[in-house]
Amino acid sequence: MNYRIIGTFLGNVLRIEALLLLLPCLTGMLYGEKQAIAYLFTAALTYLLGRLLSLRKDTTSIYYAKEGFVSVGLAWILMSILGALPFVITREIPHFMDALFETISGFTTTGASILPAPEDMSYAANLWRCLTHWIGGMGIIVFMLAVFPSNGGYNMHLMKAESPGPQVGKLVPKIRETAQTLYRIYLVMTIAEIVILFLAGMPLYDSICTAFGSAGTGGYGIKNDSMASYSVLLQVIITVFILGFGVNFNAYYYLLRAKTRKEAFKIDEVRWYFVIVLASTLLIAFNVRSYFGSFLSSFQQAAFQVASIITTTGYATTNFDLWPTFSKAILVLLMFIGACAGSTGGGVKVSRVILVARMIKLEVLRFIRPNQVRNLRMDGKVVDTETLRSVGAFILTFVVVFIISVMLVTLDNVDLVTAFTSVAATLNNIGPGLGAVGPACNYGGLSYFSKAVLMFDMLAGRLELFPILILLAPQTYKKA
Amino acid sequence: MNYRIIGTFLGNVLRIEALLLLLPCLTGMLYGEKQAIAYLFTAALTYLLGRLLSLRKDTTSIYYAKEGFVSVGLAWILMSILGALPFVITREIPHFMDALFETISGFTTTGASILPAPEDMSYAANLWRCLTHWIGGMGIIVFMLAVFPSNGGYNMHLMKAESPGPQVGKLVPKIRETAQTLYRIYLVMTIAEIVILFLAGMPLYDSICTAFGSAGTGGYGIKNDSMASYSVLLQVIITVFILGFGVNFNAYYYLLRAKTRKEAFKIDEVRWYFVIVLASTLLIAFNVRSYFGSFLSSFQQAAFQVASIITTTGYATTNFDLWPTFSKAILVLLMFIGACAGSTGGGVKVSRVILVARMIKLEVLRFIRPNQVRNLRMDGKVVDTETLRSVGAFILTFVVVFIISVMLVTLDNVDLVTAFTSVAATLNNIGPGLGAVGPACNYGGLSYFSKAVLMFDMLAGRLELFPILILLAPQTYKKA
Repeated sequence: MNYRIIGTFLGNVLRIEALLLLLPCLTGMLYGEKQAIAYLFTAALTYLLGRLLSLRKDTTSIYYAKEGFVSVGLAWILMSILGALPFVITREIPHFMDALFETISGFTTTGASILPAPEDMSYAANLWRCLTHWIGGMGIIVFMLAVFPSNGGYNMHLMKAESPGPQVGKLVPKIRETAQTLYRIYLVMTIAEIVILFLAGMPLYDSICTAFGSAGTGGYGIKNDSMASYSVLLQVIITVFILGFGVNFNAYYYLLRAKTRKEAFKIDEVRWYFVIVLASTLLIAFNVRSYFGSFLSSFQQAAFQVASIITTTGYATTNFDLWPTFSKAILVLLMFIGACAGSTGGGVKVSRVILVARMIKLEVLRFIRPNQVRNLRMDGKVVDTETLRSVGAFILTFVVVFIISVMLVTLDNVDLVTAFTSVAATLNNIGPGLGAVGPACNYGGLSYFSKAVLMFDMLAGRLELFPILILLAPQTYKKA
Repeated sequence: MNYRIIGTFLGNVLRIEALLLLLPCLTGMLYGEKQAIAYLFTAALTYLLGRLLSLRKDTTSIYYAKEGFVSVGLAWILMSILGALPFVITREIPHFMDALFETISGFTTTGASILPAPEDMSYAANLWRCLTHWIGGMGIIVFMLAVFPSNGGYNMHLMKAESPGPQVGKLVPKIRETAQTLYRIYLVMTIAEIVILFLAGMPLYDSICTAFGSAGTGGYGIKNDSMASYSVLLQVIITVFILGFGVNFNAYYYLLRAKTRKEAFKIDEVRWYFVIVLASTLLIAFNVRSYFGSFLSSFQQAAFQVASIITTTGYATTNFDLWPTFSKAILVLLMFIGACAGSTGGGVKVSRVILVARMIKLEVLRFIRPNQVRNLRMDGKVVDTETLRSVGAFILTFVVVFIISVMLVTLDNVDLVTAFTSVAATLNNIGPGLGAVGPACNYGGLSYFSKAVLMFDMLAGRLELFPILILLAPQTYKKA
């Protein structure tokens, strides 16, 4: 393995993180909080470490897939460790493991918190929590690729490792241009949400934090009751925006150009995403209608929770753990389905679910007419067997990681629903689960062992398993 | 579709069932029970219907895979409907849906009962319940193939549709010979269990029923507390026998011939099966050690429950729903792993689990060294991609059937654990789950809608999905 090239890369990532740490520092200063100094200190430390790591540049060597994946895996771990420091220094989250959990949960856009009362945190801390969502949503490496000039042909591997979904780089041939386009759309949508929330009556600070959290499909609330105390109008605006951030960004790219506008409406994944959202909302709204004053109110609450869970955001406006089992089961299912590929959301992704459904249909037909050759299509095009194989392998690996994690969490002797949904909510990067990790509870009560398992799951979920799994394989460190 | 050939086939199956129905009839007569007449009546009706269906013989046509699968699916449904009649006629299970549930649960070797107190049933009824396990374990169609002379080249399709596991027919080239060998081993082992249980102090009637239930890995108890009231010696004997019936029967076939004896110990699946059993037993024994007087007693209880669940038998000697979450989670995991392919057990099968684990390992290695070609091996031989594809498709289909079933059962508003494990325990053909369907409870309290879903799952699980799924596909009934 080429450790020098990995070092250079990690150095670049840390220098970007140092810059971003200045934002909560500034926020703290604006509000006259003494916590600001902790962010300044961490920024300086992170920058220094970044310089140190990239002292011996090596941009000429070939960057293999392996180095790409290892770099991305390590980058996310390293930036989480440094990002956790301000919480520990300010004693706002005194134990390092808790602070690390909160930071990984932030960067991976999970939004699973160990805090019983986020309202007690400083303005600086809450901004940093929500900013980690925003950075993690589109990805810090995609950001780096957008900012730094391209050096070598390795960028594809990096972007592939960080971007969700089975395929990457369809937009434009040049990686840098793709990264810039993605971040431009992302930025414009985030600013739009801030402005609209502010105009609709939300305080500016809250608007910024909420927009960061929804853009990254993260889900950290800065209020103890998440989004429940905001007006219905604000809740509806948030519903629309989180649904928007769960859409495959290819659709927006197509929409922006007159030539490709029609194609935006032909993306199978986006159409099915909205079908699933609508069907789930109607089913739940009907199932919980007696819990609310009117069907409209029931529909609005169902829509918020459905949007929040399928996009893997994790905001809540009500304690859905009290809902009937059928509604809870739908929400748990949506946790696994997740948002569109190429969005900022997590989970298995709608496109993979569509492919699996079509694979099963073909398999049944194969038994009926074994000699008939059939192709599987997506967006009207035939899907090659290599993509199908990798989707199958991804889902099987996902199931195995899921099962092992649940087994490990049950060692805590929490109930089965808590063990099952705590893993479902972290591996899919959602946040709240059911039972002891339900929307009215938090992850603070779990053992540090369970927290370590869930931290692994959050990283594995955000990076779609393999960049994290290959860090555990002994073959990674052997010479070829 | 060639309906005539399917009719002939169904007729043959029913005539065998008619013969088998005479056994509970005889048992009832021996004990002077008036219920015996119901079995005689049903036997006559079944025979008549069998004759009627095979009136217009058609043995010359070609039997396509589709007809094979449809025949097997329909045969299992039809024989369950007829097998349920005696329960209704004798009013021992007055509602037809309950009687059908009990019969499907019997034939599919699930052992999920709607009866709160099996001890109140007649001797005839309990023998019939356990006999359905024995028939369903090795399969009625395999039985038919062993008894009737082969007519045409279609038998392979039939056997493939009923036999568990990814591959079939490896033993001997001729189907009929294979079927006879399988039943010979099955019969000898069953008789051995009856004799040993009887010599160890179990009443003869109990020995026969228990042996039928363990040979088929079914799990119907004739006592209200399943196996808890039998002596430790008897429990240990049962543990050994159910583990034996969960082994791939290829191993016994190899053992019987001096030439192939060594190969029996080289079967990957059998080795891993025992590794999983031993590891699970030790983990649970350690986890529940405070629940029992000594570690030995804890080990014995753990071993019984592990053997009972992994072989998908479903006998219980203790209420494991009261065990710590970790132990329960292991048992739930074993439900899905299931026994060996080519045994009488259900579940996903150990061989498929091994293949998936190896596929995942290869997938991780693919990311590390993309250009290196690797083969997946089983028993030292390279596994072809078609087998891997079909294993992947099977597991994905299994997961989807599982999820849809759980969603439907939650409409009953039972708790999530009950919904999850009732489907797990029926789709994997085990019997008891957790919560409201735990080992100390029964399935009687569920709605008829849920029971219908679980009946579908039991059939789909026993026939490994596709023979039942294609009955639902509209393409099955269209002309090619």
